[in-house]
Amino acid sequence: MKIGMIGLGRMGGNMVKRLTQNGHEVVAYDRSPDAVTEIAKSTGAVGAASIPDLVNKLEGRRVVWMMVPSGDPTEQTLETLLSLLSPGDIIIDGGNSNFRDSMRRAKLAHAQQIEFIDSGTSGGVWGLANGYCLMVGGSDDAVHYCEPIFTTLAPEDGYLHTGAVGSGHFVKMVHNGIEYGLLQAYAEGFEILKESQFPLDLPAITKLWNHGSVVRSWLLELLEDAYAKNPGLKDIRGYVEDSGEGRWTVQEAINENVPAPVITASLFARFASRQEESYGAKVIAALRNEFGGHAVKTE
Amino acid sequence: MKIGMIGLGRMGGNMVKRLTQNGHEVVAYDRSPDAVTEIAKSTGAVGAASIPDLVNKLEGRRVVWMMVPSGDPTEQTLETLLSLLSPGDIIIDGGNSNFRDSMRRAKLAHAQQIEFIDSGTSGGVWGLANGYCLMVGGSDDAVHYCEPIFTTLAPEDGYLHTGAVGSGHFVKMVHNGIEYGLLQAYAEGFEILKESQFPLDLPAITKLWNHGSVVRSWLLELLEDAYAKNPGLKDIRGYVEDSGEGRWTVQEAINENVPAPVITASLFARFASRQEESYGAKVIAALRNEFGGHAVKTE
Amino acid sequence: MKIGMIGLGRMGGNMVKRLTQNGHEVVAYDRSPDAVTEIAKSTGAVGAASIPDLVNKLEGRRVVWMMVPSGDPTEQTLETLLSLLSPGDIIIDGGNSNFRDSMRRAKLAHAQQIEFIDSGTSGGVWGLANGYCLMVGGSDDAVHYCEPIFTTLAPEDGYLHTGAVGSGHFVKMVHNGIEYGLLQAYAEGFEILKESQFPLDLPAITKLWNHGSVVRSWLLELLEDAYAKNPGLKDIRGYVEDSGEGRWTVQEAINENVPAPVITASLFARFASRQEESYGAKVIAALRNEFGGHAVKTE
Amino acid sequence: MKIGMIGLGRMGGNMVKRLTQNGHEVVAYDRSPDAVTEIAKSTGAVGAASIPDLVNKLEGRRVVWMMVPSGDPTEQTLETLLSLLSPGDIIIDGGNSNFRDSMRRAKLAHAQQIEFIDSGTSGGVWGLANGYCLMVGGSDDAVHYCEPIFTTLAPEDGYLHTGAVGSGHFVKMVHNGIEYGLLQAYAEGFEILKESQFPLDLPAITKLWNHGSVVRSWLLELLEDAYAKNPGLKDIRGYVEDSGEGRWTVQEAINENVPAPVITASLFARFASRQEESYGAKVIAALRNEFGGHAVKTE
Repeated sequence: MKIGMIGLGRMGGNMVKRLTQNGHEVVAYDRSPDAVTEIAKSTGAVGAASIPDLVNKLEGRRVVWMMVPSGDPTEQTLETLLSLLSPGDIIIDGGNSNFRDSMRRAKLAHAQQIEFIDSGTSGGVWGLANGYCLMVGGSDDAVHYCEPIFTTLAPEDGYLHTGAVGSGHFVKMVHNGIEYGLLQAYAEGFEILKESQFPLDLPAITKLWNHGSVVRSWLLELLEDAYAKNPGLKDIRGYVEDSGEGRWTVQEAINENVPAPVITASLFARFASRQEESYGAKVIAALRNEFGGHAVKTE
Repeated sequence: MKIGMIGLGRMGGNMVKRLTQNGHEVVAYDRSPDAVTEIAKSTGAVGAASIPDLVNKLEGRRVVWMMVPSGDPTEQTLETLLSLLSPGDIIIDGGNSNFRDSMRRAKLAHAQQIEFIDSGTSGGVWGLANGYCLMVGGSDDAVHYCEPIFTTLAPEDGYLHTGAVGSGHFVKMVHNGIEYGLLQAYAEGFEILKESQFPLDLPAITKLWNHGSVVRSWLLELLEDAYAKNPGLKDIRGYVEDSGEGRWTVQEAINENVPAPVITASLFARFASRQEESYGAKVIAALRNEFGGHAVKTE
Repeated sequence: MKIGMIGLGRMGGNMVKRLTQNGHEVVAYDRSPDAVTEIAKSTGAVGAASIPDLVNKLEGRRVVWMMVPSGDPTEQTLETLLSLLSPGDIIIDGGNSNFRDSMRRAKLAHAQQIEFIDSGTSGGVWGLANGYCLMVGGSDDAVHYCEPIFTTLAPEDGYLHTGAVGSGHFVKMVHNGIEYGLLQAYAEGFEILKESQFPLDLPAITKLWNHGSVVRSWLLELLEDAYAKNPGLKDIRGYVEDSGEGRWTVQEAINENVPAPVITASLFARFASRQEESYGAKVIAALRNEFGGHAVKTE
Repeated sequence: MKIGMIGLGRMGGNMVKRLTQNGHEVVAYDRSPDAVTEIAKSTGAVGAASIPDLVNKLEGRRVVWMMVPSGDPTEQTLETLLSLLSPGDIIIDGGNSNFRDSMRRAKLAHAQQIEFIDSGTSGGVWGLANGYCLMVGGSDDAVHYCEPIFTTLAPEDGYLHTGAVGSGHFVKMVHNGIEYGLLQAYAEGFEILKESQFPLDLPAITKLWNHGSVVRSWLLELLEDAYAKNPGLKDIRGYVEDSGEGRWTVQEAINENVPAPVITASLFARFASRQEESYGAKVIAALRNEFGGHAVKTE
């Protein structure tokens, strides 16, 4: 089928490739004209000079996939689309938006009889080759209409209509919360291995565990790859960003009265990795000096 | 090659099968004569009536694999073997012993020139079909001598000589610590999904995530199986035992000054699952009543 | 000075007593006419039959203190007051509102030139006798005008103008977050004492620690009282509510990228105290059965 | 009464002062002859040139208080004393020994009919003026005999015979575990205050909270002092040592199957404060680069 794709970054660009390779027609737009030229050349997608141009190059019941950063870029793209599209058209947000924003945006769209679908998308840079795991929220009608897109982007069994609008990004949010916990579990284990009294071969253990152990996983396969390329993790700083889903998961856990100590500890470990020094630790150092005469380290 | 197996439970019995199916000769002993009779009938292993009988039925450089519960059973089996074996013979502890015990036991064995190998073994009930992931500590000579056993029990690339005695059980301990964290990460995620405002299909999401998502893993495949059989987890109590490796991992993390918040939180979640009621929570309820006049719930 | 007090519950009623005992004139209103009659009789406060009546019974630059539950009751009381008061008048929210709500409400008031003060109030049922610790946010002018009220309600040095509107409830929120952590620290310690191999006398230890130890505190004095009255904490269920500030503190910590593992763990311990059973633990029990053949407990 | 004191550091020296000021005779020894000379001059204690000399200068039923670092110094001092003392004599370990060591040492002493008392001692540098909170384990007879010492060192109600040998150090261990939690709760709260959108006056808030708030405590008074001297905590590094009791508390919690998330998180925060960089965070940074193409920070 025919679809517009807005946002040709790492994720959006690969999606255009996967769609065109499988017979779909794509009209592609990005703020960067070079990205548009590039994707048109490499995939046969039709480039668009602007969002209005993209909308014009679609016909009938138009479907537009937004693959832009969450927050302001998504908000502004949506507003532009709502000013251009017609009743019955479908907007898909494939990015990492907060599901509460998606529910709010769907209301805006529905007020104009425009459909809104939130598609949580997992798979990262491997999605082009392996397919993207898609968690899709929206009305039965709209989701059914777009199914050829979803089944192309996803591997077999890798697409699910999770429920009403918002549920796609909700499930993706929890997915990422779990991912935080998995990553931190491995991280702690490998730090304990590294600090051990035994001179262990971490790359070899990573490979070993991927063969028959209980902890084998796709992430552990990636760690095997990482260690194969860089056994000492040289030049990699212990500094970890977060892109929002982890903190949202903690907030929703709190909203639901669900204890989530592991996901939260994983989030806090990322915060700590980005601090030069903990002010709280300074408070404790000052206090221990007061009550115990314990020496403080001076800066 | 020829090997004695002591302990014919879920793990040991399956190991005898995998070894005999692949051409090894096994002399098998268990405290339960029925288990011995059963394994002899089903596998062609030679049954032994006692540990001395098992030792007598081996010859040359004898190799004995202990697959008995950690703690006293392992300790007593080792003592019996040390009273029967000769210099050069090899004892393998394939159970979940604490690596510090394994190092101590190796010293006892070495005092008699008997070799001691600690083999951390992962794979659970799936090891018979898939092979066991083996983390093996011991001297080069002893480990090399037993390699035909290890490569038979393990899948390809699923066996590693991790280093000196103790390192096998150390690496297995950390493996299980990571496993605790992975399990708790999934557990929290699925509880957040279940308590969500959306009526989500958890079995379907589990299957979905195994196809292309970042959190796909062997454990998630097992959860897919569990949900397929029992979508509501009916009749399963939220009560989780622990078999020691998790608490040892936390203790070693502390010994190494490594923060391990996720593995520890996972352990504590198990403790909490086994408490009818938290005494600490009673203390807080009493205190809140004192300072705020907050009502306490009475029993 | 003269002040209106709306809300005559545990906190508001005691505040009226403390104010009238110290020479202030109070016009008092509560949804319950009985509460109004009671406070008028016991304190000499002037009872009001409604909020309009209360406003009518004040004159000049009117000051009204709201001491009603956070959320809807506070919102509705504010709206009523805004429809009745005049430019220059002052509304004080002495309850446990979220500081973001207080900032929003101040904007509503300011749009009518009405002043808004947020006064975080600590001290619980002990405030009548000991005074309330007051954390006050608002304009210099309004806070200065109401200072006679604050200094009467507070003990010496127990009142602080913390800054602009919102800062009072922000500081109170963090105060309560710390309180969660302190309570949980004691709770864990006393549970460890209770489960010890030694038959310890917990009431005696509580009293002991209040005399010269590093952990002595007002909360520990209250625990001493609680144990004196009920050494076995009999009939007190380990079930702990939360009134919002703890979860807000965690959310703000996350907003600020500050790791707050202790405050968060304290919040989650309360959640867990209110769960009959953890669904997450059921997930783990199901999984351990899948991979290890570990028996599950059935319900 | 008459007592020997071994160890004249910050704690032991102050104890000699408090004992001599209250009419006890003290024979004092330290590895440093200067410390002995100093204490003899300033307190009227009798200096001893060696442990044998100290023992010789006591008579009748001898009582010796060890106030030396835990671990080897305590072990060696005990061994020396056991070679010198007679049946009925009493050794008191007032230091921060692990209670399991104290139980083991008591057995050694008892084998010679020598009594052993473990006295957990809290109060830090403030003990001289305020008295030390003493948690004392040992036989009824021995503890009763030494009571004049305990009641002099402690403030009123600040001494408790907690039970059999080991219970004193056990209770002190838990005391310190709680202390870790309290410190970290304050630390997190003040970090959240500091990172707030409001320009808050932390020293003023500390003082405020000590007047009527629920979180007032001796530790908060000390923090008030610390902020009064150094409002910006300038030149204090966020680097926090630990002296053992925190990690022992976690280990005992684990032994008892008690969840102790707050005490453990407090311990891990100290570990993190001492790490230049987390290896675990490097693992996660490497992994995020693998699956998401997220840039890693290079060193």
